Amino acid sequence: MTDVRTDVSIDVKSPFEPEFTTALCEIFENLITFNQVLGVKIDELQHEIVRAHLPMRPDLIGHYAHNRLHGGVISATLDSMGGLAVMAAIGARHLDEPPQQRLQRFAKLGTIDLRVDYLRPAIGALFRCEAEVMRLGSRVANTRMAFTDEQGRLLATGAAAYIVS
Amino acid sequence: MTDVRTDVSIDVKSPFEPEFTTALCEIFENLITFNQVLGVKIDELQHEIVRAHLPMRPDLIGHYAHNRLHGGVISATLDSMGGLAVMAAIGARHLDEPPQQRLQRFAKLGTIDLRVDYLRPAIGALFRCEAEVMRLGSRVANTRMAFTDEQGRLLATGAAAYIVS
Amino acid sequence: MTDVRTDVSIDVKSPFEPEFTTALCEIFENLITFNQVLGVKIDELQHEIVRAHLPMRPDLIGHYAHNRLHGGVISATLDSMGGLAVMAAIGARHLDEPPQQRLQRFAKLGTIDLRVDYLRPAIGALFRCEAEVMRLGSRVANTRMAFTDEQGRLLATGAAAYIVS
Amino acid sequence: MTDVRTDVSIDVKSPFEPEFTTALCEIFENLITFNQVLGVKIDELQHEIVRAHLPMRPDLIGHYAHNRLHGGVISATLDSMGGLAVMAAIGARHLDEPPQQRLQRFAKLGTIDLRVDYLRPAIGALFRCEAEVMRLGSRVANTRMAFTDEQGRLLATGAAAYIVS
Repeated sequence: MTDVRTDVSIDVKSPFEPEFTTALCEIFENLITFNQVLGVKIDELQHEIVRAHLPMRPDLIGHYAHNRLHGGVISATLDSMGGLAVMAAIGARHLDEPPQQRLQRFAKLGTIDLRVDYLRPAIGALFRCEAEVMRLGSRVANTRMAFTDEQGRLLATGAAAYIVS
Repeated sequence: MTDVRTDVSIDVKSPFEPEFTTALCEIFENLITFNQVLGVKIDELQHEIVRAHLPMRPDLIGHYAHNRLHGGVISATLDSMGGLAVMAAIGARHLDEPPQQRLQRFAKLGTIDLRVDYLRPAIGALFRCEAEVMRLGSRVANTRMAFTDEQGRLLATGAAAYIVS
Repeated sequence: MTDVRTDVSIDVKSPFEPEFTTALCEIFENLITFNQVLGVKIDELQHEIVRAHLPMRPDLIGHYAHNRLHGGVISATLDSMGGLAVMAAIGARHLDEPPQQRLQRFAKLGTIDLRVDYLRPAIGALFRCEAEVMRLGSRVANTRMAFTDEQGRLLATGAAAYIVS
Repeated sequence: MTDVRTDVSIDVKSPFEPEFTTALCEIFENLITFNQVLGVKIDELQHEIVRAHLPMRPDLIGHYAHNRLHGGVISATLDSMGGLAVMAAIGARHLDEPPQQRLQRFAKLGTIDLRVDYLRPAIGALFRCEAEVMRLGSRVANTRMAFTDEQGRLLATGAAAYIVS
């Protein structure tokens, strides 16, 4: 593990061991390259809920006339966050296994489908996203996601299904 | 209009006037900034169907171990393409209006919601996306989208609803 | 209004005037005929949340081998309940208008689309459904729904968008 | 097998053996009890596409003022039809197995989620529904559905994911 990864996970609220937390942050924020483009940073990992934020950037704009975040940034972030919530839930279910073994369980994880409801224009300097696992089955996991602005106003909601094994 | 924009639209199949085609390409490929990040380029604008492609790039990767396109790139592209199809359909419905007046009709366009079904891992050097308007109503438009690889294999499908006025 | 209708709404928790509450129950439980087939009965009408229940019946079975409720009963109930939540929210927004005028606002209401996530097999003698309005806009309303068994276990969730004017 | 069942399947276009076709019709039209309530009757079973129709009935009405089919009838029918298409596709993939063995493969089939887009008011004496399997994987199957009136006008479209094993 490099210093960078450790630094990243220092500020992350998490009930998991540092090794697992650090590895999950590293996977999510760096190895899943497109998440770097989105700029999503993890704030909190709980057993069934995860939270993150992303700062507004000019290249994330969708509606040129109104300085709005592109809907695709929202859908991409919701998809990623749902997947992260499932990873945390899988990690929580197998706490008896060493971290590396739990991390290998993510290899088979894949998004089956995703739904996004756009409620309000996404305008602001920073956005927050939360994902919750509604059910973790042996084959399929279901999540719900919420995308808010800094004031906590709901901008978009989502739901996704993931294949887990 | 700059040379660049004109160049862009030269290769685009389109039944619309050059001015409208060029402006639509400019809006989609440049003014909607995040579409530049995605790298989506329009190939064809028809009255109810639009087609585009995007090349694979390292920063669009989702699954680090498998060199797969990030699901969020797919959902973002499908959302953008559905919106483009609605713009073309609005443009086709108001052919009696001058191009600039038709373009102003897009100001109120917004995605209500989006669904994406991920069918197969998105691996390859280039991807194609097609969006079709299923219905353009006075208030709501519905689209269906397909995301394929270079061999035409279906990788993902989508459906979206847009508010149009 | 008949005795029956009045009886029906007597047991409904509601912050609305009896006339509005009774009319809303009458529309939902009787005039929307298919809701009678489903057997959905309103328990509570709040400004942004509504609750109802439906008893299991042999003709609502989906999986013959397992005595499970048909997924279509769930999707139909979620759609109806989302619509009811929007009606309540519209009613709450226009409390200054007489009940009859508020009721006429429902004429333009229509479901744009619906998503249902099936989490667990629906087995039991009675089911409950709750719908919440996430946002009531001037043109579009968005809802989230939850379908549970008598023990409160989540069996299905849903999201829907409605055109309101 | 009763005469009734045999009669039913006589009119069904199908590339499958009569035994399999009859059994599939029996499961779909009779054993899945709620399909009787909907009144859906199979017209055609192909390896990846299935077609059915349902007649309008007063108890299927949703919007009392307009004699429209209830949205829930549409969502329930689309869900059922997607499932039927998956059954046919599973049947087609295992043609080397005797019919009874193929039929037992349906035991694990379950809807993961469903999306319905309502395009136009469903008014008419008879409706048709078609479902197509977009991909049959070893774990998940994806379908697309279309709901039309007698004139072939598209009234609703749908997409669903099913767990198959």
